[in-house]
Amino acid sequence: MPKLYDCDISGSCYKIRLFLNILGVDYDAVKVDFVNKEHKNPSYLALNPFGEIPIFEDGDLRLRDAQAILIYIAGKYDPSGLWFPKDAKAQGQIAQWLSTGGGEIMNAAGARLVKVLNYPMDLEKLHAGANRVFKIMDDHLANRQFLELGRPTIADIACFPYTALAGEGGIDLSPYKNVVAWIERMKHIEGFVPMPGIPSAA
Amino acid sequence: MPKLYDCDISGSCYKIRLFLNILGVDYDAVKVDFVNKEHKNPSYLALNPFGEIPIFEDGDLRLRDAQAILIYIAGKYDPSGLWFPKDAKAQGQIAQWLSTGGGEIMNAAGARLVKVLNYPMDLEKLHAGANRVFKIMDDHLANRQFLELGRPTIADIACFPYTALAGEGGIDLSPYKNVVAWIERMKHIEGFVPMPGIPSAA
Repeated sequence: MPKLYDCDISGSCYKIRLFLNILGVDYDAVKVDFVNKEHKNPSYLALNPFGEIPIFEDGDLRLRDAQAILIYIAGKYDPSGLWFPKDAKAQGQIAQWLSTGGGEIMNAAGARLVKVLNYPMDLEKLHAGANRVFKIMDDHLANRQFLELGRPTIADIACFPYTALAGEGGIDLSPYKNVVAWIERMKHIEGFVPMPGIPSAA
Repeated sequence: MPKLYDCDISGSCYKIRLFLNILGVDYDAVKVDFVNKEHKNPSYLALNPFGEIPIFEDGDLRLRDAQAILIYIAGKYDPSGLWFPKDAKAQGQIAQWLSTGGGEIMNAAGARLVKVLNYPMDLEKLHAGANRVFKIMDDHLANRQFLELGRPTIADIACFPYTALAGEGGIDLSPYKNVVAWIERMKHIEGFVPMPGIPSAA
């Protein structure tokens, strides 16, 4: 059975939990004590020298980086091929948002670390970066139900958690009405699971 | 013919030029005046609201983000399938380094912007981030010729430019002997092209 190095309050780990649950894939969760920085311990760094969660293990394969793990899981466990289709155009379109999910949206993740765990980072700069990308997403979603292909893909999974958690970082999503509607839409996907800070649909 | 919004001195654009040349794909280059911030002009932002180069256009498809473009080009123009194979395991392994190339290694790109174009960023922090990832890559390459699969893939293309340009940002690569050897190895790939700051193999 695949193994996820996991932490309840991590939006990055939640990307993987959410996708596995949507696909109905069983897995073992190994809890990592993120608050006490277990992911910076030598034994964890031996598994992932980047010192980040999640890690995903499946047989003799060990992967780091939530976006890479989503790509692997889609290829291995999604027989429909709908979440990350094999064709070049769809993969390119989706990969744009994998970069955004692991990139600009992490400004919102950083703001949350400042607010919740007192990380010493520049909150103003993080807020500016987060608001910039949420505005872009809001414009993009003005005439779309999901980020690409007109249906949920791993693009949405990669961008969803830290967007939905933005309020915990002190970011007000209410100006981004299309983003707020998209968050609600995500919560109605069959197999959706909540996490602390991201409740199920009302 | 596909179209690349390009800038000679951009390592991100060079990723695409290098890969297209290796695959022998013809394209039109549209020069973007990065130094004078043409990529922040309204007409450019209409093409890519993130205000970043490169953009790649192919028929009715327009893609942003160098890593997403590499994925698309591999799927569309590499009949060998060797640069980004279709199987889940290989895609996951490679995607880890796409994230690194668009993520941690961009610390080195930032340091270069500070040194070359006087961007107001924290050079010390950028150097620390760059050295951290180069150490990880150096350890990873201790018993490998290329980042994954034992041969060149788009993982290497994504990580190569800003690593090879690190010196322009004031970063000394000499402690990372495996990285230096990998850079030389990259220069011997058939179809390699140089860029300003990355000369051909001696």
